[in-house]
Formats: sequence, structure tokens, C-alpha cells
Amino acid sequence: MKRLFSFLTMCLITAGSLFSQNNMTTKFFDGKDLAILGKAFDTPHLYGRLPAHLEGKIREQLWYLGRNSAGIALRFSSNTTAVTLKWSVLNNFSMNHMPATGIKGLDLYVNEGDGWNYAGTAKPVGKSSEAVVIKNMERRVREYLIYLPLYDGAEKIEVGVDNDSDFNPKPENLMFSREKRVIFYGTSITQGGCASRPGMAYPSIFSRLSGVETINLGFSGNGRLDLEIAKEISRADFDVLFMDCLPNCTAQIVRDSAELFIKTIREQKPTAKIVLVENPKFPYLVLDKKTFSELDEENREWKALYLKLKKSDKHIYYIPGDKILGDDSETTVDGVHYTDLGFMRAANELYKHYKKIVKN
Amino acid sequence: MKRLFSFLTMCLITAGSLFSQNNMTTKFFDGKDLAILGKAFDTPHLYGRLPAHLEGKIREQLWYLGRNSAGIALRFSSNTTAVTLKWSVLNNFSMNHMPATGIKGLDLYVNEGDGWNYAGTAKPVGKSSEAVVIKNMERRVREYLIYLPLYDGAEKIEVGVDNDSDFNPKPENLMFSREKRVIFYGTSITQGGCASRPGMAYPSIFSRLSGVETINLGFSGNGRLDLEIAKEISRADFDVLFMDCLPNCTAQIVRDSAELFIKTIREQKPTAKIVLVENPKFPYLVLDKKTFSELDEENREWKALYLKLKKSDKHIYYIPGDKILGDDSETTVDGVHYTDLGFMRAANELYKHYKKIVKN
Repeated sequence: MKRLFSFLTMCLITAGSLFSQNNMTTKFFDGKDLAILGKAFDTPHLYGRLPAHLEGKIREQLWYLGRNSAGIALRFSSNTTAVTLKWSVLNNFSMNHMPATGIKGLDLYVNEGDGWNYAGTAKPVGKSSEAVVIKNMERRVREYLIYLPLYDGAEKIEVGVDNDSDFNPKPENLMFSREKRVIFYGTSITQGGCASRPGMAYPSIFSRLSGVETINLGFSGNGRLDLEIAKEISRADFDVLFMDCLPNCTAQIVRDSAELFIKTIREQKPTAKIVLVENPKFPYLVLDKKTFSELDEENREWKALYLKLKKSDKHIYYIPGDKILGDDSETTVDGVHYTDLGFMRAANELYKHYKKIVKN
Repeated sequence: MKRLFSFLTMCLITAGSLFSQNNMTTKFFDGKDLAILGKAFDTPHLYGRLPAHLEGKIREQLWYLGRNSAGIALRFSSNTTAVTLKWSVLNNFSMNHMPATGIKGLDLYVNEGDGWNYAGTAKPVGKSSEAVVIKNMERRVREYLIYLPLYDGAEKIEVGVDNDSDFNPKPENLMFSREKRVIFYGTSITQGGCASRPGMAYPSIFSRLSGVETINLGFSGNGRLDLEIAKEISRADFDVLFMDCLPNCTAQIVRDSAELFIKTIREQKPTAKIVLVENPKFPYLVLDKKTFSELDEENREWKALYLKLKKSDKHIYYIPGDKILGDDSETTVDGVHYTDLGFMRAANELYKHYKKIVKN
């Protein structure tokens, strides 16, 4: 009998019969052997975001967040009829305004020549989990993409396909351009708070819209223009850098650190496009006048810096915040952190600007 | 120093200084004395959805879900500069694909004559919680709306406003039409799985779009055309009934129960508009051919019933499923349950049809 599983019985059922049935005919491949996307640096942990030499040199919280696997994705191709994912995470982290699927789950996209389509989500049940993500597919070769946890660190990932299927862990065509790589430097929002699942963080939506590899350098509460991060970015390969860190800064931080941050990158990357993103219009600001004026001051500092730099820098751009979240007040879970609705609108708005920027 | 609180320190900070500071100048009112919206029946539990006489008469799971407060909302007006909410829930329920804010949190909307705008979310920390939802507002009278937990039962709710503010627990103008009341009968999706916060379940978005009171009769996994529910609906006051239960039915359930369900309501409500909603195009169905053909069979039974009834019933309508979730595959957390992105699209699509239906 087909029906949507009741929420109350879903866990029991998926943990039981479906898995054991599937395991009998499934072979597994370690994620470490798959093609990997979304990393700008060599890192001590395969699914981490910051290089080893920064440990102890940057603030502890920033280092901790660098171990979250936000924006990292694995690629493979196969003619399997089902995909099972086994994975473990570092912290088994939880929050009350973001589902576990986004914090520490995985999601799977498929490409059959018509763009990337969502296939399914691997829902976490603890530090280690296993889930059948899609089944009942016709047997033919498809390209696959797995997004890793946003607010936890993936430790080990295994990809399960039909025993008798072909499996290519490193497809020749990555299907995302590396030469035109885009880096997003920012906050908890950039890191993906509070997407329902990893693929809905806006840098990942942006990569599917643009066909370009994106790097997520969002650090929850810590996108504060640290000079060490600027130095790292200046060494990475990229074509466009979105600086969407303003919600973690004060006007004083902008005055103290923003120009040096940008110039540090500009020295090494004379023609890379650097895009300053303004604070979005957080929905509650029409009511909370105190916070409104604080953010307004930040925006004015940010814009003033842009206008100053623009005089001698023709590769610097500015995106106003007023259209990022659209016209209504419905895009966040808590007034600040985007839901999938907010992420979709933000990705579309940034992509609209991006197309103009790269045309120049 | 203004910055987005880091996720790691947020709980400690909000549980500490903000609350104690606010409590010193806050007076509380019990939710039981406020105007209430979203209830079709007299119920044994104020924040429940089903009448007492159904206990023991309907399936136990259906009765349990009737105690979830999905779609219920409280109204008040005040010239307060801040709003604090204290509340307790029945089960302290959790799921791994829906945030606690949606399951058992509250959210607050404000109306200053320009429609309902989101103001803030009360994030749950357990069975009992307290949260400052909005602060730093200018002192003037505003209309307020609080949405109750979607997948847990609110037990007690208290609304805190400035000690020296005016508070009207029963505003004369409810700001939602009761004569044109709309009932949504359905599944886990209708109940609000997996909205980020209560106000984002599609029946609640629909009520803000339309200005009409909506009743959420979504029962997770249990929208299976039970005759007892039809009898209850037939006794309720409403203008339009959306039947969005198909994802919980099989083709056999449709054949066995749908016609009697509709006729039971039609007997008591000869001119009410009854709208049959088709299965949406769940994103994974392009891959999972087995489930696709099952849902396709349900759709065909549903459509055939509509065409049969339409011959003698001029108040019956049909909404095809192909446009409900839009053109991409990004609208769900797990292939089935909508995120806020899916809910927004579904609400807009149903509202588009609704406007045509009520024009006739």
C-alpha cells in the first residue's frame, strides 16, 4: 500500500526493512576516491575548508568552523538503479532553527543532460547514518553530485550502488567550470544557515545556476574580515569573489579591516572581480529601528569604501541589499537566517548581477 | 558590538541576559483569553483541532494528530515596544528533517495597515520555552498574530508586552474573513511538514494572501478519506474546501472512499465549493518510475471522480498538480515534504485557482 509514511513511524521503517533489503545487493565506494568540488585549499581533513598552516594562527572558532564541510560536493557517474549513502560526522551538532538534514545530512542531485535535478536526501540519525536516497530508477548512466553537511564536518562518506552496475568515481567532465571559479566569503548565512538540506545553501544553488564551481567560505558568526583569511583567498584560484560578510561586521570593523582585506587580495589577483554585497533587508528591520540604524551605518561605510576603491580599481563591484530577499517578509526562519525560500531568491539575485559582471 | 550571534553561543546568550532584562518590565497575558483563529470545532483542548466526541471513534493516530495545533493562531493588539512569548508543548516532539521552530515553535506577524509582515520567531528549547520575539519598536498600536506549533500541541501560551503598554486581547476586527472560511483537508504536507516555522505552512500563507480565515485539517500520514472526518467537516462553517489528501491515499482508497466522503459533505453543504487537488509533481518522480506510476494511477482515479461528480454538481473544482511546485526540483526537503520554498509556491498556485473559483 502506497502512502506517505507517517512522521511517527518513518524512522523505524527506514532504519529497518529498507536498509537491510538494499544492502544485500549494494557495493560501496569510499568518498575519498571520488572527484571533489568546492575546495579552494589543500586541507588536513579531506572534507575541511581551511589549510593546516592556519591552525593556531587564526581565531579558534574560525578554525573550528573551517572543519564544517559547507559547500563541498562529490561527483560520480553510474548506471545504478538506486543510490545508498553511508556517512559519519564529527560533532553530531544540533540547532533548534535548522533541520538535521541541513546541518549534517547529505543530498543528491542527478544530471541527465538537462541540468542538475534534486534526487533525494540522506537523513541523519546520529553520528553515523545510512540511507537509501533514490531507488526504482531505470538502468542508464547518469551524472551524480552529493552535497556535504553544512554545519558539521563529514568524516567518512561511502556511496552505495547496485552490485552489478558500472561506477566511475572521477567523471572526466566535472560539469562545473573550474577556470571561472567563484568564492563566497561570508557569515552563517553564506555557510548555509538555515537551509533545509546542503544543496540549498545559496553558493550551491548559484553553482547549479551558473555551471561554475563555487567555494563556500562562510563562517557562522565569524565573517569579520580577518586578514589571515584574505591572505588565504589571495592564494586561491578564482575569477569572482563575493564578499557577503557584512552581517557579521560592525561599521567599525568595516572601517578598520575592509580596505586592507580587499587590497591584500588585489595585490595577488590584479584582475579578479571583487563584489561587495550589502546587508540584505532583514524582515524585522522595519520594526526594530535600533538594529536598522546599525546596519544602515554598515551599509554606508561599505558603499563609501566601494566608491573610494572604484576610482582606481575597475574590477570592483557593488550589489545593493534591497532586492536580495524579494518584496515580502517571508524568507527567513528567525528574521536573519534564510530558509530555502530566501536562499533561492538570494542566489537568483546574485546570479543576475554576476551575469552582468562577467560580461564586462 | 553588533554582529550576528554565532550559532555556538546563541543559546547561552538568549537564555541569559536578554530574558532577565526583559522580564523586569514585562506583563503577561494568557493565550486562552485572546481571539483565536483556525479552529473549525469546539474541542476538549483549546489548542486542539478535533471535537471530543471523536475520541475512541476515529483511528488513534488521527486523534493524536488532532491534538497538534497546526493552523491555529492567536490575535491581539498592543502599543508595546517588545513582545515576549512563553509557551509549553505536549510532546516535545523532534524530527530530523524539520526544525524545532516549525515543529513546536511560535512565530509572530504584525499588521500596520499594509498586510501581515513577519516579525520574529520564538525558538523552542524544550517542553517549556520563553523568547523575546521582537524589540526596539516605536511605541504605537499594531495588530498581532501568533501561529502555533505545527507538529506538537501547544499547552499554555503567554504573551508578554511592556508593563506600561495597552493590550487588547480581542481586537474587534479579526482582519480575516470568517464568512468565507476555507478548510484544507490533507496530509503531512497540509499539516505543515516541513515548514521552517508555523506561519509558513501553506494554509497559513494562503490566509495571509486571501485575508480569509483558514482551517488546517492536515493529518500527517493520515489524510485517508476517513468518513468520520467528512461528517465533521459537513458540520463546520466554510465556503471552500480544498481536498489535498491524495498523497496519503492509494488508488484503491480513492475508489473505495472518495465519493462517499464528498457526498457526505455535499448533503449538508449544497453550495460549498469543493476543490480536488491532484498530487503535486514530487521532484524524485522523474527518476523513481515505480512510485510515479502509482501516483499517476491515483491522479487518474481522482480526475475520473471529479468528471463524474461534475455532471450533477456545479460547485466542484479540480486543480492539476503539475504547477503546484513550480518548474524546478528544489522545493522539498526529502522529495515529498515541502520547504518554505515549496509552501510559498503551493500557496500562490492554490490562491490563483481560488480567486477564479470564488469569482464564479
